[in-house]
Amino acid sequence: MKSSAMRDLMAVTARPEVISLAGGLPDTSSFPPETFAAVAQRIARESCAKALQYGPTEGLAGTKDCIVEVMHADGGMKVDPDDMIVTTGGQQVIDLVSKTLIDPGDVIVAEAPTYPGAVPTFSSYEAKVEQIDMDSDGMRIDLLEERLDQLERDGRRPKFIYTIPSFQNPAGVTMSLERRQRLVEVAAERELLVLEDNPYGLLRYEGQPLPPLYALDRGVYVMYLGTFSKILSPGIRLGWVVAPPPVLEKINLGKQAADLCTSTLSQLMVQAYFEEARWRDYVESLTEIYRDRRDTMLDALAEFFPAEAEWTRPAGGLFIWATLPDFIDTTDLLARALRDNVAFVPGEAAYLDGRGRNAMRLNFSASDEESIREGIRRIGKVVREQVALYGTLTGRPASEPARAPVAAPEPAEDAKVVPLRRKAQ
Amino acid sequence: MKSSAMRDLMAVTARPEVISLAGGLPDTSSFPPETFAAVAQRIARESCAKALQYGPTEGLAGTKDCIVEVMHADGGMKVDPDDMIVTTGGQQVIDLVSKTLIDPGDVIVAEAPTYPGAVPTFSSYEAKVEQIDMDSDGMRIDLLEERLDQLERDGRRPKFIYTIPSFQNPAGVTMSLERRQRLVEVAAERELLVLEDNPYGLLRYEGQPLPPLYALDRGVYVMYLGTFSKILSPGIRLGWVVAPPPVLEKINLGKQAADLCTSTLSQLMVQAYFEEARWRDYVESLTEIYRDRRDTMLDALAEFFPAEAEWTRPAGGLFIWATLPDFIDTTDLLARALRDNVAFVPGEAAYLDGRGRNAMRLNFSASDEESIREGIRRIGKVVREQVALYGTLTGRPASEPARAPVAAPEPAEDAKVVPLRRKAQ
Repeated sequence: MKSSAMRDLMAVTARPEVISLAGGLPDTSSFPPETFAAVAQRIARESCAKALQYGPTEGLAGTKDCIVEVMHADGGMKVDPDDMIVTTGGQQVIDLVSKTLIDPGDVIVAEAPTYPGAVPTFSSYEAKVEQIDMDSDGMRIDLLEERLDQLERDGRRPKFIYTIPSFQNPAGVTMSLERRQRLVEVAAERELLVLEDNPYGLLRYEGQPLPPLYALDRGVYVMYLGTFSKILSPGIRLGWVVAPPPVLEKINLGKQAADLCTSTLSQLMVQAYFEEARWRDYVESLTEIYRDRRDTMLDALAEFFPAEAEWTRPAGGLFIWATLPDFIDTTDLLARALRDNVAFVPGEAAYLDGRGRNAMRLNFSASDEESIREGIRRIGKVVREQVALYGTLTGRPASEPARAPVAAPEPAEDAKVVPLRRKAQ
Repeated sequence: MKSSAMRDLMAVTARPEVISLAGGLPDTSSFPPETFAAVAQRIARESCAKALQYGPTEGLAGTKDCIVEVMHADGGMKVDPDDMIVTTGGQQVIDLVSKTLIDPGDVIVAEAPTYPGAVPTFSSYEAKVEQIDMDSDGMRIDLLEERLDQLERDGRRPKFIYTIPSFQNPAGVTMSLERRQRLVEVAAERELLVLEDNPYGLLRYEGQPLPPLYALDRGVYVMYLGTFSKILSPGIRLGWVVAPPPVLEKINLGKQAADLCTSTLSQLMVQAYFEEARWRDYVESLTEIYRDRRDTMLDALAEFFPAEAEWTRPAGGLFIWATLPDFIDTTDLLARALRDNVAFVPGEAAYLDGRGRNAMRLNFSASDEESIREGIRRIGKVVREQVALYGTLTGRPASEPARAPVAAPEPAEDAKVVPLRRKAQ
């Protein structure tokens, strides 16, 4: 899917009559305006001139202290502020790491499907992206190792492995503990860098927290991407990267050339917010909202999608990945869905090789429960029409089983990870 | 000068005992905290959820309206908001335009000296930068044409010409009206894009405003870089680019890959500020502060620098460019100056070819008048010591005339541009 098509999609979904399950927007309407006001008053009182001024390229020390606190809250990660650079959102980390490490034609590894927003970035640096299939326990590390062996035989060495282990975007699956441990071992054995993208780690709706790769590896081969976008606000554009010193030094030079420094205003907003309010309470309130919305979407999928469809059941994060019979092209389907004022992200946006055409990413964080239910009803109607049309045209029964979905649930290899079940109807 | 050395410099100058004439920082302490508070209260009241949310990659319509107002205030520029993208500061414009237009080895043209912050950006895209000498009327367009002819004979075509016509960083000189007109003609005749970087256009301390290149060309070949950094705040990281549609489309894709969108919080801060306060009054108050500081620095240079030194006399902006006898290396000199707790930017940071070693950039916007005078006194002392030492070692009189400075005043070719004079002592 072309980026320009993605932008057209975003423009259409800005129309108020459209129910958009396409974006990855958090629910910022739940943030208390009085907290915003108190935070801003504190800055006006204590640090107005500083907030309006340039800051160091690597970020403010006080902001890094807040980040240390966030990382500690997520799986007990311990990090040295000197190993970190504050960035203009998490997206800038993907861009700067790519800029730093990728030369045209270099191989990198990602999940299949991968974060749609990373696709144009990897493409812009002319990376050859090897996408590794997932199941309900996340990236198949056995397939990863096979692919790495093959690449080694071809004399190719990936620059890094990009992964979202927790509540993956777009698939909604979570990498099991065993696979996390094995991935970290593989990285060490083969001396490969890993970029762990973890925007949703604290947004868990059930089950026990799993350690981030960074906690298992302690930052030797694992670089870490964090962001305030999903636990506070994406509008402040505040993320961070943790990386080994030689890489971090290059990222710093890249950032200086890209935008000099991250917004001081945003950095001080976070600092004042951490002093003024209990940030974990707000994250807790978000998880309650999102859990209900996820459940509503799962219920609606069971009710409105045809038997031929399958979908993931995320234990956290913002997304469900639905796989339709492979005669359905979700990019075509989107055009029909938009006529019914509903939107999703077509699956091919999450691949660099044209796969994913029969899948879609559905977001449940940005809409209220009524809209989610209505949106899924509208998409389900269009899908059912397509399934029926196919049956009419081909004479095949519409209920013929679909091709196994890319990120479909499989028997859990890790008994400790409770497989998510469809809610009882 | 290596970027890492530049960063070390910035770290040293953060020490409170150091008088830094090195940075390009505006005086944000003059911004009224009560205005900041009122602006933030308005956002808390009216648009908190929006401020915290993602926005469109190209920027918010209301922010673009403010930009249209700023551009109209500066030489009456007229611009269509659809031809504009709001960016993460002006630096991002340099990065995105470079990313969009430069392939490794491509030629671009810049002034000699050029903005030190653009040097690592151009280098990172492996541009071959042709730097054209300036005099007190800005870039020598005759030399530009000669160079373009030469490049054409070599079968090379520059991707764009980068220029800061008004109160140039670092030289402090301003391109005359005749040269502006000729540059726009040259661009049209040869179908060459120009990137006009205009951060200081509204910060004029004397003389009549000159039309920006964009106003003369009306956006056919001239792309425009604007920023709120010098008229409001660099800490909000808010700039913009105006470019022809095919270029703008690519810049948009590049921006999406780089950081998704510009801070919504910063964009709404500007909108609320434009509603809440009279932004031109604040710019007027800044010009009064900076005019006095410039005059103080010019007086101090006349008093404390040796007869062998020369310097520019800017009619606006933030910088003075001083040229010393060519036996002085200002990078070495900086090490000595830092021992006396004063800093400047060594001239070689403004060149890609090692020139500028006997020059320095001096900032007068970030320090109060007492610090400026003391800072220039300390630098002058170190320079005089070097001049005396050279005389002792070589037996040559210390007062031997220095090599003509790169950006030294020459007879004005444009009688309408009043050459700046040293203030009477």
